[in-house]
Parts: sequence; structure tokens; C-alpha cells
Amino acid sequence: IDAASAAQAAVRQDSLTKPPGSLGRLEELAIFMAGWRATPRPVIKKAQALIFAGNHGVCAQGVNPYPQDVTQQMVLNFQRGGAAINQLCIASGADLRVVPIMLDTPTADFTTGPAMTSEEMLSAMNIGASAVDGNADVLILGEMGIGNSTVASALVAAFFGGAPPDWVGPGTGSDAAGIARKCAAVSKGLALHGGRPALETLSRFGGREQAAICGSILAARASRIPVILDGFICTAAASTLHVAHTGLLDHCLVGHVSAEPGHRRLLKELGKRPILELDMRLGEGSGAALALGILRAALHCHNGMATFAEAGIS
Amino acid sequence: IDAASAAQAAVRQDSLTKPPGSLGRLEELAIFMAGWRATPRPVIKKAQALIFAGNHGVCAQGVNPYPQDVTQQMVLNFQRGGAAINQLCIASGADLRVVPIMLDTPTADFTTGPAMTSEEMLSAMNIGASAVDGNADVLILGEMGIGNSTVASALVAAFFGGAPPDWVGPGTGSDAAGIARKCAAVSKGLALHGGRPALETLSRFGGREQAAICGSILAARASRIPVILDGFICTAAASTLHVAHTGLLDHCLVGHVSAEPGHRRLLKELGKRPILELDMRLGEGSGAALALGILRAALHCHNGMATFAEAGIS
Repeated sequence: IDAASAAQAAVRQDSLTKPPGSLGRLEELAIFMAGWRATPRPVIKKAQALIFAGNHGVCAQGVNPYPQDVTQQMVLNFQRGGAAINQLCIASGADLRVVPIMLDTPTADFTTGPAMTSEEMLSAMNIGASAVDGNADVLILGEMGIGNSTVASALVAAFFGGAPPDWVGPGTGSDAAGIARKCAAVSKGLALHGGRPALETLSRFGGREQAAICGSILAARASRIPVILDGFICTAAASTLHVAHTGLLDHCLVGHVSAEPGHRRLLKELGKRPILELDMRLGEGSGAALALGILRAALHCHNGMATFAEAGIS
Repeated sequence: IDAASAAQAAVRQDSLTKPPGSLGRLEELAIFMAGWRATPRPVIKKAQALIFAGNHGVCAQGVNPYPQDVTQQMVLNFQRGGAAINQLCIASGADLRVVPIMLDTPTADFTTGPAMTSEEMLSAMNIGASAVDGNADVLILGEMGIGNSTVASALVAAFFGGAPPDWVGPGTGSDAAGIARKCAAVSKGLALHGGRPALETLSRFGGREQAAICGSILAARASRIPVILDGFICTAAASTLHVAHTGLLDHCLVGHVSAEPGHRRLLKELGKRPILELDMRLGEGSGAALALGILRAALHCHNGMATFAEAGIS
């Protein structure tokens, strides 16, 4: 982060026609953008939204009420403009790209062995990194993958401890029996794959879209592109990097806190405060895209307001 | 509210390509708009933002660190486009109109007598009502007036009980001594004007911009225009109507919860949940304008998403 640009942005904020601090988090967001974009007057000309999709072998354990075909059907829906994320990207001015990753080749069932080999994980990370537009001023990340809330729960249970019920929620709509199956799958997975380094844990639980999210976050960092993370599954994937090396998520905002119960707990582990809290639990980048509107508004104020001197105010 | 349109909107929400309920409050907002606009597919073609400004005799009690001239200076800043609300209205697509009300004639000091006569209050209510554009699809309300957080605290202490420190906060930036002066003014005012009906209480504490806010809320209701209230001072003004007749604020959303401490308590009294919580405490409609972006996004999803049948999803 460019501390000088951030400091200049903070000085500007205090010169604008409002009581100092009265725009609250909008001021923080403007200063954050200044630091990461290395300019005291950051702008968003281009916002990119990337949605990664994958399929998961753990669906064999009955962890999701929907068939895996829905992942491909939803990818088509994204491509045709029919999903929530399409509308939210229109509303917030983001360019959406959907990246399905080997949907016909689900990862292996992590309750019986590693979900991915190291090579498969690295390949998916590279797909994520390559998808990042280096000319973007901000990157929104989301995911789609039937069964991936179970993968997310397993990952964060491995990273942060706690029992499966602390991290497992209804996801797309599991009932009590479904949640019990999710917990059982997570327990089996922890027994097989627990206690390993962060990236090895990611390869063992999966999935491809989670690895792609990690790859894109690293690529964005290299280009000084701030990231807006979405809900539980997206943040759980990103937490791999936090565990691997504290500070790797410093350029990441969290767009919202999901109604999926594990998300709030996860944000506490990461020390991240969400921008929005609207009881959403959809994934596909929806909360992150919505938060882009708040970030845009913060920069409108930062760049467009008059200073006290300009306005001639006592 | 048109229950049939709201019900049709709810049916549509459950047909869209997402797990039912997974857009959380975005779904609620779409259904709310459908009910008040009396159409299952509500749109926002025109959003109006009204900022009322007034001056207050209670400033003689040293309740604000800034001179009253700042009210007029900020009105000029609004008119020239230099304030936060100008930028936030650009960002969210609202037409801003600033309505200063007799700034050269502050209300009387409520610590020594009634702030307004009934005629003065009704005149300000009419100014507020007349300012509403009947063609708007949603109305954003805000205020500006040096000293008006003391007026707001006095109003809600009179309406909802509690001691002055429960309702008095720093406002634009009072220190501990300033807060003590605000509490003392509220105490004096309660001794003089407590225990009266809602509108009489409003006339006795003031001010003109508070009365205009009430008038505009009533005019909006008559035209089925939903309203987005802003922070503590705006909501305190509106609470006059709630106390006068339960249900008069049913067409009002609350854009955000302010960092001004009394706001959260006030929202609990009104049974209203804010859309945003971003530590803002600026007033001038800023939190309401920001929330308009969320409302627009909710309607984008409601109107633009494909149904499961349209998308051919299992």
C-alpha cells in the first residue's frame, strides 16, 4: 500500500465540506483506494467482476438438494444475462465475466481422498490469475458450484478450528437432515486432511473455483487492484491466503456479511468488517457487486466535493 | 399499501433464478415498492431528493460549535454542487432540490418559549408538501440546520421519554461541554413543553425544516410515493407523525443508521430497520441517497432476472 497517497487522501477528506469523519466508512473506503491505487485521487474507470464455477465430488455424500447439472445451467444463465449477478453488475457498472472450470470433471470426493492434485489446484489458480484484467481499478469476485458451501465449511474448519456445526449452514437450502450430511462430510474430511499447510489444505478439500479465487486475488495484488470479496464461500476460499501468509488479503474488502451463519465467524477470524448486511445468501458475487455501488459513491464524494476553502465556509 | 401487487411481486421473487429468499432484504425492498407503487413490477424512473434547511433560536444556548451563518453557506454549497449530497445524488441518480426556509428568521429559543407558532409550523409543513414532485417514484429526505440535533433530541425525548443524555450526542462535533449544554437546553425545553400532543410538540421545539419533512412525508403518502428517511435528525422529525398516528410512516424506509447515538434507539422505538450502517453522521440526506442505490439494485433484480422456467433450470 502506498502510505503517502493514503495520507494525502486523508488530508483531502478533512478539507471537504463536512465535519471531519462524518462520512464514516465512505472516507475509509476512499483512503483505502488511494493507498492501493497509489494516487490521492483514485477513480473507478473499469470494474471487473469474475465469477468462477466448478463442480465437486463431495456431492456424492448428499450435501446439496440440487443436482450438479445446475452449476452448468446457472453458468448459461449468467452468460445469457438472467441471474442476479447480471442485474447487480448492470446496476453498479461492472463488466462481468463468467469462468466455468472443467464442469464435466468434478473434483474427487474429499471424504474418500484429496479433492485435487497439486497440479490440478495450480492449474485452477492460474486460470483465476489469467482472468484478471490488469486495467481494472477494482475486482469483484464470486463463485457458483453446487456443493461448494460444504467445501467452504471444511476449509475454514481446517483453518480455524471449531466443530463442523460451527461452520456448516443451510447453503442453497438444505434442511436439518441435509445439514447433518454436510457436517458428517466435513468431519470425515477433517479426519483425512486436517493439520496440513494452507495450500495443501485447499488442494485436498477443493475446489477449482476456490483455487481460481485465490489465484485472482494474488494477480490483483500484483497489479495493485483492490478486490471486493463476496459471501461465505468466496471469503472461505480467500482465507486460504490469509492462513498461508498474514496480510495477503490486505487489499481485499468484504462486500457483505451473508446470512449463511459461518460467514460472520469467518470475518471475525480475518479481522474484516463487511460493507453491507442485507441478509443475502446467494453467492455468485452478488453482495460484492452491490458493495461496488457504495465504493463508487465514496469516490464520488472524495473527488467531487468542494473543500471548505473552495466553498468559502466559516 | 396495495396487498395484491405486493403478493404478485412476492410470487415473482420466488420464481426468479435463485434460492427463495436468498436476496434477503433486496426481495423485501422490491415487494415493498410493489405494494406502495401498486404494481407488481415497480420501477424508479424519477427519484427526488429534498433537503430542507432552517435556523434555530436554541443556538443562543451555545448548543453548536459553528455559527448559524453556516446553514446559509451550506445551502449555497448544495446549490453549487459542492456538498456530499450532490455527489451522492449523482451516484444514485436522484434529482436534488434544496429548500431553505426563512433562514434569516430563526425559530424562537425553545428554552424560553415555543419555537414556532402553530401558523408558522403549518406554513413550513405546506412548504414541505408543495416541494414534493407527484411524478417521483421515490422521495429522499434530508435536512440542514445548525443547532438542529438539539431540536431532534428534544423532540424524541418528549415523544419517547428517557433522560436527555439518552438522546443527545455530539452532532456536528460538540465536545463534552457542548453536549452538556445541549442536555441542559433539552431539559429546560422538556420542563416548558413536555406532555403535549405530537404536532403541538413539534411546533414548540421546532424547527421549520422538521415541519417541512413532516409535510413532505404526508404529501408523498397521498401520491403513493415511498420515502427514504436519512439519519437521526430526519427520522426524529418524521417520528412526530408516528406519534400522531401509528402507521403514518409505513411508506417510509430508513436509509441508514447514523453514528449519532440517539438514532439506533429511535429506530427501535419506530420498529424500523435501517438499510445501511456505515458510521455516517452527516445528515443532508446523505445516508438516504446512498440507500437509493440499494433500492435501485433490488428493482434491477426484481425486473431483470430470468425465472426458472425462462432459464430452463432444474
